[in-house]
Amino acid sequence: MREISLVAFLQAQNCTTLPSSWRHPDARTDTYSPEYYQHIARVLESGKFDMGFFDDRLAMPDMYAGDHAETVKNGIRCVKLDPVACMMTMAAATTHLGLGATCSTTYFNPFHVARQFQTVDLMTKGRAAWNVVTSVNDNEARNMGFESHTAHDLRYDQADEFMQIVLGHWDTWEDDAIVADKANNLYAHPDKVHRLDFKGQYMNSRGPFTVPRTPQGHPVVIQAGASARGKEFSARWGELIFVSPRDFDAAKDEYAALKAGAAAAGRDPDSMKVANLFYPIVAETKAEAEDKRAAYDKLSTEMDQLSLLSEGLNFDFASKEMDEAFTDDEIDGIQGMQALRDRVTSTGIKNPTVRDFMTITRRGLLHDGNTVVGDAKDVADDMERWFHEPACDGFVIGPTHQPGAFEDFVKFVVPELQKRGIYRKEYTGSTLRDHLGLQKPDIGAWRTNYDAAE
Amino acid sequence: MREISLVAFLQAQNCTTLPSSWRHPDARTDTYSPEYYQHIARVLESGKFDMGFFDDRLAMPDMYAGDHAETVKNGIRCVKLDPVACMMTMAAATTHLGLGATCSTTYFNPFHVARQFQTVDLMTKGRAAWNVVTSVNDNEARNMGFESHTAHDLRYDQADEFMQIVLGHWDTWEDDAIVADKANNLYAHPDKVHRLDFKGQYMNSRGPFTVPRTPQGHPVVIQAGASARGKEFSARWGELIFVSPRDFDAAKDEYAALKAGAAAAGRDPDSMKVANLFYPIVAETKAEAEDKRAAYDKLSTEMDQLSLLSEGLNFDFASKEMDEAFTDDEIDGIQGMQALRDRVTSTGIKNPTVRDFMTITRRGLLHDGNTVVGDAKDVADDMERWFHEPACDGFVIGPTHQPGAFEDFVKFVVPELQKRGIYRKEYTGSTLRDHLGLQKPDIGAWRTNYDAAE
Repeated sequence: MREISLVAFLQAQNCTTLPSSWRHPDARTDTYSPEYYQHIARVLESGKFDMGFFDDRLAMPDMYAGDHAETVKNGIRCVKLDPVACMMTMAAATTHLGLGATCSTTYFNPFHVARQFQTVDLMTKGRAAWNVVTSVNDNEARNMGFESHTAHDLRYDQADEFMQIVLGHWDTWEDDAIVADKANNLYAHPDKVHRLDFKGQYMNSRGPFTVPRTPQGHPVVIQAGASARGKEFSARWGELIFVSPRDFDAAKDEYAALKAGAAAAGRDPDSMKVANLFYPIVAETKAEAEDKRAAYDKLSTEMDQLSLLSEGLNFDFASKEMDEAFTDDEIDGIQGMQALRDRVTSTGIKNPTVRDFMTITRRGLLHDGNTVVGDAKDVADDMERWFHEPACDGFVIGPTHQPGAFEDFVKFVVPELQKRGIYRKEYTGSTLRDHLGLQKPDIGAWRTNYDAAE
Repeated sequence: MREISLVAFLQAQNCTTLPSSWRHPDARTDTYSPEYYQHIARVLESGKFDMGFFDDRLAMPDMYAGDHAETVKNGIRCVKLDPVACMMTMAAATTHLGLGATCSTTYFNPFHVARQFQTVDLMTKGRAAWNVVTSVNDNEARNMGFESHTAHDLRYDQADEFMQIVLGHWDTWEDDAIVADKANNLYAHPDKVHRLDFKGQYMNSRGPFTVPRTPQGHPVVIQAGASARGKEFSARWGELIFVSPRDFDAAKDEYAALKAGAAAAGRDPDSMKVANLFYPIVAETKAEAEDKRAAYDKLSTEMDQLSLLSEGLNFDFASKEMDEAFTDDEIDGIQGMQALRDRVTSTGIKNPTVRDFMTITRRGLLHDGNTVVGDAKDVADDMERWFHEPACDGFVIGPTHQPGAFEDFVKFVVPELQKRGIYRKEYTGSTLRDHLGLQKPDIGAWRTNYDAAE
């Protein structure tokens, strides 16, 4: 019996992914306290969520005008904490909820990432996930000591090697390697612990790795690459894919394409789950929910958008007037989120203006493509339709504000989904893979597929 | 009233710092479970310890013969988990205990380290510490993608820049920067959040940093450099210094030298606390404790020593016969722990053999210089003598095995210290700095001292 997966979209920052969220009257402002994260964790677990996962960016968005004054004043994601520390804080308050964090293949070391996430998986008894990103902009590069960000496709080529190292290390301890036989002085079987010895074009790692296998084998690999190169990467490596589709039809097509991509990469398509992002605004009645939406829209500022467009596209929007068009070179030269650019140019506007970018992307704002407004039945109807089509295997719930948006969702929508028999009433397993319906990976399985697809 | 500080020496691995520990009949073997770390955390907090801190190494010790078979079989620190994930697991089970983790300036990025440890400090409400190391051997380098380890003094020069970045970032948010004024859309005062813009000879970081100040300002900086260059580094940066003195007289001299070094670096000597490592073996009676010591010594293997000497000195001891002398070039070329080498050569043996290294260092073993055996009164007498001389401000308690060694210490020695009025009966503050008697650092204070000392 197929069941919906629910994933909470979390930010280790002063706002949700929407900058306006901190201005919401009900938003908590103690966003850098353990109590805040633990409260959210308990809400999600009471709603039997599969997991919560933290997005990340290694810089505050101060690309706009090259200055952070507006970022800080408007509270546009200006506080960004370490997501792993926040994830571990939530782990302590829960027993079943899966937890994930983003970590960049461009600015971290694969041995470290393999060790850290595998340790988190042990310390949570198999509830961990790693969201793989290649990072976005020059200000992340500059914080991390480089002049500018690595070019788009090159960083995916590097990421392919990064994944071979991480998954390679995760495969080096066999499940029964450790015996801890004190009397015979045999801690682990030497022939069940292997050395990776990876030498690539961009990176190396020797091993032997120092963390044994976990109850679910290793952390779940999340991917959200939306560009053509990003999707190729997802098809190869992603176990849970996070998608922000424009509309129902686009979602249906993307779902089919992702599953086909996994099959083409030599994988069982069911070893990849797809979850679509949306922002639910739910209340006792539809009218009440619509009022909430209207009130919410008033919270946003123009600067929210300009700032997030600048950092997402790695381009300073202050360098252009509101109605000044981007040149061909500027459009082609975008090395940030290319899918965000393409969303604008694919409408047929070859040289969009700043205003076009704002109107079409509505970056950092609610819009019809990402928001569902209504009572419990309305929201559940929508989810059920997408799920059954299928246009997804589950949903990433984006919160308009925290913790209120999750509390509303758990209060109104979760019981409705449970009543319809398409969502769990209780956790039936203990690991994140159990929740998501993903098999524990066999050692070496990814390698076989990878070699077959090459 | 001066009080003793107590620090637990923790390892996120299958044994304590002593490889034989896992073979102890009472040692727990679930060393990669959260329950194990949380149990130890509760024991330490019941004993009112200032803190527990995790050592680290980015490779298992397989320098010996270039192979991990003996390492894994003998269980010589072959499992090494991420210490931050383990620290956060312990944080969840405690409310007062300080917690620290080691992180290498040679293989990590200063922006990341600043962000991660500052976040841990927020999530623990001011209980965090960072133990600064420059790493030790080639196998760490090879796991992290490099051919060989950075030369000894160069990595300290790099570490000096690393510290300027980390402490620099920690200083960029003023204590009252965040106001979260929703009605006036003022999240934080732009003029109270500063950009670092650090450009050094070896590394750069731009900022603005993304984590606000914490209840104790920022994490406590721990240092344990024992070489001449390492001590210079400690004098400049260390707030808590971890020392493994040879004997009482050496400790007395070292204590005075460390305090003088801090003063020479323009610091208040009281802003640096010194804690000496020792392994207590305590029981109801001295005779019983001596029996425990004798039984413990039987647990060690020759391989424990050879393996740890190889990784600590970054030299393959399998390349020499037991009685073969090291050449002058080999001795001079040691780029690992130079203080460990010097401990041998300072005895007057210019060209030591493998056996000399084993006999003199007793690496990974108990010896008279690091072990105190007796009943509660014996151990407390010894501690009181060192503390009052002064030869230290506190102690790093090395466990012969876990959790038993900490349980014994808390059961027998802690009440004796409390009775004598030299150790807290209850926590009187909430942050790690409160426990250690360290002031919350003023913004920019380190910089003034640093500039003065240059």
